[in-house]
Amino acid sequence: MKIVSENACFDGLQGVYSHASNSCACDMTFGMYLPPEAKTQKVPVLWYLSGLTCTHENAMTKAGAQGWAAEHGIALVFPDTSPRGQGVADDDEYDLGQGAGFYVNATQQPWAPHFQMWDYLTSELPALLMKEFPLIEEAQGITGHSMGGHGALTMAMNLPEQYKSVSAFAPIANPSGSDWGRKQLAAYLGDNEGDWQAHDSSLLMREKGYRGHVLVDQGASDQFLKLLKPEVLSHAIAERRQPATFRMQAGYDHSYFFVASFMEDHIGFHAETLYGI
Amino acid sequence: MKIVSENACFDGLQGVYSHASNSCACDMTFGMYLPPEAKTQKVPVLWYLSGLTCTHENAMTKAGAQGWAAEHGIALVFPDTSPRGQGVADDDEYDLGQGAGFYVNATQQPWAPHFQMWDYLTSELPALLMKEFPLIEEAQGITGHSMGGHGALTMAMNLPEQYKSVSAFAPIANPSGSDWGRKQLAAYLGDNEGDWQAHDSSLLMREKGYRGHVLVDQGASDQFLKLLKPEVLSHAIAERRQPATFRMQAGYDHSYFFVASFMEDHIGFHAETLYGI
Repeated sequence: MKIVSENACFDGLQGVYSHASNSCACDMTFGMYLPPEAKTQKVPVLWYLSGLTCTHENAMTKAGAQGWAAEHGIALVFPDTSPRGQGVADDDEYDLGQGAGFYVNATQQPWAPHFQMWDYLTSELPALLMKEFPLIEEAQGITGHSMGGHGALTMAMNLPEQYKSVSAFAPIANPSGSDWGRKQLAAYLGDNEGDWQAHDSSLLMREKGYRGHVLVDQGASDQFLKLLKPEVLSHAIAERRQPATFRMQAGYDHSYFFVASFMEDHIGFHAETLYGI
Repeated sequence: MKIVSENACFDGLQGVYSHASNSCACDMTFGMYLPPEAKTQKVPVLWYLSGLTCTHENAMTKAGAQGWAAEHGIALVFPDTSPRGQGVADDDEYDLGQGAGFYVNATQQPWAPHFQMWDYLTSELPALLMKEFPLIEEAQGITGHSMGGHGALTMAMNLPEQYKSVSAFAPIANPSGSDWGRKQLAAYLGDNEGDWQAHDSSLLMREKGYRGHVLVDQGASDQFLKLLKPEVLSHAIAERRQPATFRMQAGYDHSYFFVASFMEDHIGFHAETLYGI
């Protein structure tokens, strides 16, 4: 693991690190915020998965998360959204390929050799982080924005023993029924829609739900509401009687100004669960 | 005035606006955050001046300021750091010309026709803002980072009736004695160092000080300490017996991670004074 940068931040440390990833068969970069408590003890960790076009950097600089993580004594991980580099397949559109990994293991060409973000994030990177940083393995939560909200919800519902808390900001909530999803799931996983099911949080909510309370915030003036389809997830939550708080926030759009506005609530929500373990 | 963008943010509004500036003889862009209180009443306003290479956007997205401004009920203005555009003079170096106006009125060629940032920020833009937004003209504070900290301190000490509170993050504290300053003041104002005096906060502090308590934060691990010269300002403050809090913050560098870490303190500091008027 190589140190790209380290900056003092809210009496803790905001680092950026890179490492050779086996899953993605390329170098990967991630951000890691350690709160002041981590100087002397192990701390819970919250994964933050980012949206289309983002790198590890966007949320790290724009989400206003570190102050609340410092206050609550939890670490934050900001992974990249896809494999990257010259040897890695890409597409001319912003919503496929590099910057748009959709948090799946690709089975189709030309994506399969590198686009293994599911394995990378649920297995390889956690193992590395637990080795390199003072984190409590049993106290992991996960959240994310847009495509990252999709990643957070699908990972938490598929691996509830690993992720003890989950929340999302404006998630792509029903990708198998949306232009933000159908094209990508077909490209990465193939045309058999049965293979998409484990990567659609509304379908997972219908089928299995989640072990704990779920928090979702969605801007009511989000310019991408027709692609995000919050109503499908909201319906599934209510139908299942899933313990959850689903908030449509008046006036908010899809930007990081929205994410930052509710970050305090989300980090507090995760801290309550993760410190209760 | 044209609306470039408006986003809901912490129950207030983060806007970006552009307008034709008379002072700078070009179009200028600025960010303006209005807290929730501004929906029903006039509010105090805090000017945030940015550093070298920045536009109106950097602090607006990375300083984590809006949440605290919302909590305290004060507006924030994020101006650009220089005139810009095809007809505007520029330099190949990052520290002169566009993105590096140094908050002065240039008297020298080729800068004079457009580089009138002092007049723009202390006169033209305030007049526009008071007309267009619900701001209390008598309750203006000013802060900034690096070159912007220089701008904030020099404007406040020269115009104490206009700026009722002042603070700075890692200001260029003694430009007339630094490579961050001598080159620029000579280029914009000419070789007569007497003309630079009104634009050096350490010299102003020695000569006249400020009407109120001054807050300065400086990272002790700042990579630019030799250019910023905090010791000259600190010495002048102590020698003058100027009411002030000057904090050397262990471990912090020059980045926005430093600025964000202490933004709560600065906005609280300004709010206390501005709401006391």
